[in-house]
Amino acid sequence: MTVPTRPVATVGPVKIVGTGLLGASLGLALRAAGVAVQLDDASPSALALARDIGAGTPVESGDPEPALVVVAAPPDVTAVTVLAQLEAHPDAVVTDVASVKAPIVAEVRAGGTTGAGRYVGSHPMAGRERSGAAAADGDLFAGRPWVIVPEDASGDAVLAVRNLAADVGAAPVTLGAQEHDDAVALVSHLPQLAASLVAARLRETPEAALGLAGQGLRDVTRIAASDPQLWSMILVGNAAPVATALREVRADLDELITALDLAAQHGPLTPGAAGPLASLVAAGNAGAGRIPGKHGGAPRRYGEVTVLIPDEPGALGRLFSDVGEAGVNIEDLQLEHSAGQKVGLAVVSVLPAAVAPLEAELDRRGWRLVAH
Amino acid sequence: MTVPTRPVATVGPVKIVGTGLLGASLGLALRAAGVAVQLDDASPSALALARDIGAGTPVESGDPEPALVVVAAPPDVTAVTVLAQLEAHPDAVVTDVASVKAPIVAEVRAGGTTGAGRYVGSHPMAGRERSGAAAADGDLFAGRPWVIVPEDASGDAVLAVRNLAADVGAAPVTLGAQEHDDAVALVSHLPQLAASLVAARLRETPEAALGLAGQGLRDVTRIAASDPQLWSMILVGNAAPVATALREVRADLDELITALDLAAQHGPLTPGAAGPLASLVAAGNAGAGRIPGKHGGAPRRYGEVTVLIPDEPGALGRLFSDVGEAGVNIEDLQLEHSAGQKVGLAVVSVLPAAVAPLEAELDRRGWRLVAH
Repeated sequence: MTVPTRPVATVGPVKIVGTGLLGASLGLALRAAGVAVQLDDASPSALALARDIGAGTPVESGDPEPALVVVAAPPDVTAVTVLAQLEAHPDAVVTDVASVKAPIVAEVRAGGTTGAGRYVGSHPMAGRERSGAAAADGDLFAGRPWVIVPEDASGDAVLAVRNLAADVGAAPVTLGAQEHDDAVALVSHLPQLAASLVAARLRETPEAALGLAGQGLRDVTRIAASDPQLWSMILVGNAAPVATALREVRADLDELITALDLAAQHGPLTPGAAGPLASLVAAGNAGAGRIPGKHGGAPRRYGEVTVLIPDEPGALGRLFSDVGEAGVNIEDLQLEHSAGQKVGLAVVSVLPAAVAPLEAELDRRGWRLVAH
Repeated sequence: MTVPTRPVATVGPVKIVGTGLLGASLGLALRAAGVAVQLDDASPSALALARDIGAGTPVESGDPEPALVVVAAPPDVTAVTVLAQLEAHPDAVVTDVASVKAPIVAEVRAGGTTGAGRYVGSHPMAGRERSGAAAADGDLFAGRPWVIVPEDASGDAVLAVRNLAADVGAAPVTLGAQEHDDAVALVSHLPQLAASLVAARLRETPEAALGLAGQGLRDVTRIAASDPQLWSMILVGNAAPVATALREVRADLDELITALDLAAQHGPLTPGAAGPLASLVAAGNAGAGRIPGKHGGAPRRYGEVTVLIPDEPGALGRLFSDVGEAGVNIEDLQLEHSAGQKVGLAVVSVLPAAVAPLEAELDRRGWRLVAH
């Protein structure tokens, strides 16, 4: 089975400074595409590990000049490293992959040179809970957005970074530096903190209460398993936009608490009690409906077929074989299963026009369907 | 394909008062199990609809006395309806299915009689985003917890409600009334509000920013699509425990904002900036790790096999056939797919011992695996 590929547009060699998860994964992806990769890292052991997994070759004197330098260093040393690379390689395009952009662009500008338009900030929206070259993955960027922040960069420099993103399977997206930082505060940093805030409440919850947990709690808290050190660095790096988002959340939260106190003191039917709660849930409907893509868009763009499945080897296999033989493409899938139960629900999202024929076909094949 | 069943223990006839989603779904489930069902509803049209979908027969004078009465009326009239049914049927066990328990138990006690131990509060942890008999589903309770709140009830009465829950495929769980209300505030009501609070921030977010949305945002906001009227009623009904949970969240939130303001004003490396953020994420790790069941437990109890899949009909079917033929049971599954991309990732959770053999077998069959 193969994945669609395009001709590689990146002109090597590419020098990668910093061989952690992102740097090593990028090296693996470029090597797989046949691009020469030079690796550099302040830590000899990290460098050796990246070399050993096949992410590239450690830089040596006499190496050909890189056409593109990718700085994948920790956020706090990214800008100074970018400046050093601009100076060390006077003809190279230099980019970085840090998760915050405005402060780095500002620091590079303050450094006196942006290399005559050779610096392009960027941010591949990819990562994992584990870090380091040991967790590197050549497919890490496949299908993920890769934000490109031109600011002072030349058109050629921007094109070189767009090509890099496309060559490793990412989808290039162009944004301003502050635009990017405000965006990730809302779509990435705020959800992480919300998941952690809810999950943190479960530390002293009685086992019996946790036994009532449903899919809702599991969805909301899934990303609460993220790495504390990595995330605290990401969050302080984008402190102002994240604080702004949290202040807006706190204002809504205060309204909810006031309304709930009214209901607690004077009864659920007290005027002013239910209104703010209904308004907030309605506002959430509106916001959630704007999230694009298969998952976010599913409630509007796809129909659902819900099937009861027994908890036994091959059951899902039989279901999906039958769906495939019906010629229907699965756009999204959710499994619901309560621990200890012998049956689960598979909610299959398909194009609206495919719902009725698929339900008929699955019914014919003896599956138990749940009506919508 | 059939689902494991047990002999029906419920002694009919069962009278269901209130034919909305829960009442009508319960009627469908009991009728499917061969139990006689009497339906009652203040609304003749709602009653007719429930009858027409096969949830039971409208009550008539001369009907045999019900052995069990299930009050599935709106929360604000549940207690008074319970009292009326206790009086109308002096030998019947009476239960209710309202999502809050302590206030109803108190109101029933205040009514002067709990029918000599014949009243048992209960709460099936099942529902859908749509309401009314039109959305009714005989499998609604399959595999879901059904909380039973004995309080003043006799052992026989409690057993009758446990049997009812088991007969419709639910898992009976016994809790005190306040214990139940505190539990659902944390595992159900708080996650709903957190999802709505995050999603509400997306109403004015630029399209370009929403384009960066990943699986994290989608997981956190999935339940934000819930019905505002229904949820405002549920939340005001459990106001005090929900307000307590939100106050704890606000205390954490204030600490985060203080830390982020420090970082914004004096730089990310300011002492006291990163610490509180790392602590909160770590607290979230601890809380999330305590959630039982397949999804919540997956990060610890299962290993993961990640497979690249092309976006074409039958691809998932082929994958799951191959997994099934390898004799491996899929414990959980997550699909990651960015809109417009021709390839997605399937993260398959299996028993740890099955990871290596499954990866070897899938690789042999030509699947592209993503290393962990």
